[in-house]
Amino acid sequence: MSGPTGSITAGVASLIADTPRSAVPPAALEAARRHVLDTFGVTLAGSAEPVVAAALDVLAHPPSAGGAALVGLGRWAGPVDAALVNAVSAHAIDYDDVHSHVRGHPSACVLPAALAAAEQAGLDGAGLLDAYVVGVEVAGRVGRGFDASHARQGFHSTSTLGVLGAVAAAARAFGLTAGQTAHALGIAASSAGGLRSNFGTMTKPLHAGFAARDGVAAALLARRGVTATETVLDGPGSFTRVYCPDGGEPDAALGPDGPWEILVPGIAIKKYPCCNRGHRTADAVLDLVRNLDLRADDIAEVRVRMPAGQVDGAGRVGPMTFPRPASGLEAKFSMQYVVAAAVLHRALPMAAFTDEGVRDRRIAGLIGRVRPVNRPDGDDRVEVVITERSGAVHARSVRFTRGDPRGGAPLPWDELLVKYRDCAVPVLGEDATARSAALVERLPALPDLRELTGLLAGTTAG
Amino acid sequence: MSGPTGSITAGVASLIADTPRSAVPPAALEAARRHVLDTFGVTLAGSAEPVVAAALDVLAHPPSAGGAALVGLGRWAGPVDAALVNAVSAHAIDYDDVHSHVRGHPSACVLPAALAAAEQAGLDGAGLLDAYVVGVEVAGRVGRGFDASHARQGFHSTSTLGVLGAVAAAARAFGLTAGQTAHALGIAASSAGGLRSNFGTMTKPLHAGFAARDGVAAALLARRGVTATETVLDGPGSFTRVYCPDGGEPDAALGPDGPWEILVPGIAIKKYPCCNRGHRTADAVLDLVRNLDLRADDIAEVRVRMPAGQVDGAGRVGPMTFPRPASGLEAKFSMQYVVAAAVLHRALPMAAFTDEGVRDRRIAGLIGRVRPVNRPDGDDRVEVVITERSGAVHARSVRFTRGDPRGGAPLPWDELLVKYRDCAVPVLGEDATARSAALVERLPALPDLRELTGLLAGTTAG
Repeated sequence: MSGPTGSITAGVASLIADTPRSAVPPAALEAARRHVLDTFGVTLAGSAEPVVAAALDVLAHPPSAGGAALVGLGRWAGPVDAALVNAVSAHAIDYDDVHSHVRGHPSACVLPAALAAAEQAGLDGAGLLDAYVVGVEVAGRVGRGFDASHARQGFHSTSTLGVLGAVAAAARAFGLTAGQTAHALGIAASSAGGLRSNFGTMTKPLHAGFAARDGVAAALLARRGVTATETVLDGPGSFTRVYCPDGGEPDAALGPDGPWEILVPGIAIKKYPCCNRGHRTADAVLDLVRNLDLRADDIAEVRVRMPAGQVDGAGRVGPMTFPRPASGLEAKFSMQYVVAAAVLHRALPMAAFTDEGVRDRRIAGLIGRVRPVNRPDGDDRVEVVITERSGAVHARSVRFTRGDPRGGAPLPWDELLVKYRDCAVPVLGEDATARSAALVERLPALPDLRELTGLLAGTTAG
Repeated sequence: MSGPTGSITAGVASLIADTPRSAVPPAALEAARRHVLDTFGVTLAGSAEPVVAAALDVLAHPPSAGGAALVGLGRWAGPVDAALVNAVSAHAIDYDDVHSHVRGHPSACVLPAALAAAEQAGLDGAGLLDAYVVGVEVAGRVGRGFDASHARQGFHSTSTLGVLGAVAAAARAFGLTAGQTAHALGIAASSAGGLRSNFGTMTKPLHAGFAARDGVAAALLARRGVTATETVLDGPGSFTRVYCPDGGEPDAALGPDGPWEILVPGIAIKKYPCCNRGHRTADAVLDLVRNLDLRADDIAEVRVRMPAGQVDGAGRVGPMTFPRPASGLEAKFSMQYVVAAAVLHRALPMAAFTDEGVRDRRIAGLIGRVRPVNRPDGDDRVEVVITERSGAVHARSVRFTRGDPRGGAPLPWDELLVKYRDCAVPVLGEDATARSAALVERLPALPDLRELTGLLAGTTAG
């Protein structure tokens, strides 16, 4: 490559550009297939949100030639615009996956960038998976050096780290040289932004959109000869020092042999369409009510014992600030509602988080019997204690939500399909949902992405 | 407005949305007309740079209807894309104006956003000037609270503050309500970025482009109903605290009566197409050689006495790091070359900063007789001492470059026209250059922007 060899940036650029396809471990590609299915699902579900329509109106243009699919929207756009719109959809309902090094949502930025670039470059299914894995790798590796001060400063790491993941995926898909990739990283780093103060507004999903857009744009600009600093990840003034002054440099030992970010720590798929803070509680409640066949009317109280300091006097649990939600959106951020709905439905489908779901009369009776409390210790687990009217007491403790790769086995494909269907059928209908899922299952061997992207765009639905 | 009243954000949004046109002082509009002419000039000159062609290829789309002019490119685009491309052109040759509160280049971001939005909204000349003045006001007011730590951290304030100026101009031109404007400010603040480590590369002008694009997009998204935090300029997690933790809050007393940023401190127009650090030196040299009729052959030495600490052992002066430049681009960042060319040509036209200009044999003889040195004191002025071969010594001291509004009278319109012609004629030809300048001179009374934007697009040449 033309950039300074031996620099961190050169190492990352070389990882992106020079890692042979054969060096990406099969387990990484297998994991990628699962996260791709899941992300397509939440993108389809999010595509109906008003912020997507606004982004489409203001920022998307018809393709000049070919074009990339706008998932769920029955339209196509240029690759930069498609990456933006699909990323907004992917993040719009906060149902997309999370990664502990990114401290946020990697796939919402990386997959839309990988997909748009792969479509533009005419890649096959294996090429899409490969670009996605590399994008996650770069976002995670840079994020590994970040610490909590980045969020404390007020930045939304989903987008600040996401743009580096997006540019890595796009550069890989476009086949940029390591030299071009170093410039692309420099351009993308100058696009990083996103304020946490916009959480809870329609701008939060725009953050993912901007990052995916800017990643694809940076790769295309670098391919077109635009120059940037060749050492954007190194030393004073680097992306790392500007956005996380107290953090560490990205791991400079960037050989492709290390544990891949998609495997260790891996990406956690959200099983429930609500705030991540409620997921361990939901796991515990669902385990108890399903296994013990507990009925809502039998339950006197559900006590949710959180690590010390997470519950305030009004029963708000961290970002879950609505003890008595009035809308589907508020219900996503209500620990009380999540527990009540899990008891009532013995599941937490998307339908539970609608305004109609919140108005269910049976919820009103249950929700007052849910009590989040602080445990005296700060140990990072959640304990749910259900007391029956009979006096019987049942408890369940959860440290990692089921399916979190840090806690053991991933979710089985069948369970992923349940979520995918929940998300996709309202947009694509039964047939296209089943066919698209089958194509994602066959992605490693798929010779062409066009049938899949045609289905995802939703042309069959019109 | 719908946002929290009494907040800083509400005050800024109200300034943008609710200030009556009649409250913008005539002197501000008069200054605006001058900066608009100047910025159109450097935009035309920059439009031929390779980074503009790359941005055009990758990021600009034909307009869906109507469309905004791409200055110098003979084409039109949607308002978001036009703002981007024109801002890249405006900043591409580093010949655009500077503002001490922005600590960077305000007009490169603000005018392209104002122009694209004004074209889209069908405004007249007065409307364009009004939107531009308000954009400069917001960038300057927020920048007033910033200090040098923002740049030390590694951010490029031209774009981080520029996006707020751009969104203010666009919101004003589109006639957003104060409530919509608060959301637009929130969206725009989540788009702020740009690393100083990209200085000296083609990515620096992209920073202005991204800021202008994101400002116009944020205004359009907010108009389309996209929500954001309504208090993005207030308290912990605010734009200010995230991007300049050590700075002060923007002035909350945001009545339209205070001294307007375009007047106090005002915007300094660059008279020379080279690094701003050399401008006071150039003023002093040109004054001396013109007034005393000094000839290159008569001069034994030109000593440039800079404030203490600005010159290193190799004769590099701050960012002017090329004592013996090998190209036109390097010459822009060479104090030695700037002095030699000013002596030789008795002017510093764009032609002096080409590869051909640098190769002029007469430069080689002169450049070795230029000696930048540190003064023992740190007083912020520049002193030029010319020693003739005869032994005669002449000195000139400059604190503010001529035309810097902090130092007194602005440049006369005739002198602005000389620069405009230097920039515009190669792109537009003599006739369109003269006609466009005349239309800018009449901007306050111009009923329609279309004749002007048609000339600026360069359709007559194209």
